[in-house]
Amino acid sequence: MRHTISLLVENKFGVLSRVAGLFSARGYNVESISVGETLDAKISQMTIVTSGDDQIIEQITKQLHKLIDVIKVTDMVEFDHVEREMILLKIAPQANRKLEAIEIANIFRGKVVDSSEKTLTIEITGTEDKLTAFINMMKPMGIKELVRTGKVAIIREGTKK
Amino acid sequence: MRHTISLLVENKFGVLSRVAGLFSARGYNVESISVGETLDAKISQMTIVTSGDDQIIEQITKQLHKLIDVIKVTDMVEFDHVEREMILLKIAPQANRKLEAIEIANIFRGKVVDSSEKTLTIEITGTEDKLTAFINMMKPMGIKELVRTGKVAIIREGTKK
Repeated sequence: MRHTISLLVENKFGVLSRVAGLFSARGYNVESISVGETLDAKISQMTIVTSGDDQIIEQITKQLHKLIDVIKVTDMVEFDHVEREMILLKIAPQANRKLEAIEIANIFRGKVVDSSEKTLTIEITGTEDKLTAFINMMKPMGIKELVRTGKVAIIREGTKK
Repeated sequence: MRHTISLLVENKFGVLSRVAGLFSARGYNVESISVGETLDAKISQMTIVTSGDDQIIEQITKQLHKLIDVIKVTDMVEFDHVEREMILLKIAPQANRKLEAIEIANIFRGKVVDSSEKTLTIEITGTEDKLTAFINMMKPMGIKELVRTGKVAIIREGTKK
C-alpha cells in the first residue's frame, strides 16, 4: 500500500541522508520526496511517498521516531488529508497545435510560465490522477521535459479517520 | 551564492541517500529538495537548492557526476531558467476576516483546496519572493501549518547565459 509520510526535522547537516538511508537499508524505494523550510528556519518539513508492506512501513516510522533530529512523524494514511503536487512541463507543439495546447492547459487550470518560438512551459498542480490525465493529453504535443515537485500533504482537520 | 542543481538519476535504492550524503559530508546544508519520477519510471529527477562557496559547489557537482546512478547534473546558475515552488498553507482566520483571506488568495492566484468551519487551506505557486509576500500577508490571519514542495526549475531555452 502507498504511504505518504510527513516529517518535521531539525534543519541540520545529514538529516536527509539519515532519513533516506533508513528507507534504502530496508530496500524501500522513495517514490517522491519534498523537503523545505517551515516558518521556523531551524525546522524543515519532509514529505515522503513510499509504497510497500504496511508492517514494514510501521517499522520504518518507528525507527524514524527514534532518529536524532526527527521531531514528528505522521503517516497521512491515518488522517483525512489533501495531497497535491506541481509539475513543470515543457512541450514543443507543432505551430498549428499551440493554441490547442494552451486551451488544454486552461481547462486543467494550468499556467503558461514560459513561451518561446518552439516551446511552451506549463505549470500545473493537483492530485496525481489529474496530473497523469494532463500529461497524457499533452503527450501527442511532444513532451520535451517534465519536472515534478513530489507530493505534499496537509491534514484536513486533525481528526483521525 | 545560492545554486539550484538539477539531477537525473536512476530510480534505485540508495541514490537519494548517497546524493544527500555528498552534501552533508562537506557541511553543506540542502535548503530544499524535490524528487519525483520522470516520464520514464526507471529515471528520477532531483532538484536541490543549496548555497555556499562557488568553488565548493563546483567540487560537489563534479563528484555528483562520478556517482553511480547519476545520469546528468545541471547547475541552473548557468542557464536562463524558470524556478517555482508550491505551498499549502492552513490558516485559521477570525470569522470576520475569512472573506479577506480568500480575496488575498485570489490576488495571488491561489486556490482554496480545503475549507472547514475554522480553517482555510490555500494552495499557491510561484517564485520564492511571491510566496514570501503571500505568507507575510497571511501571518496576521493565524498560520496553523505550512508545507512547501521545495523548488523545481526548468531551463528556458537550453542556451547558456
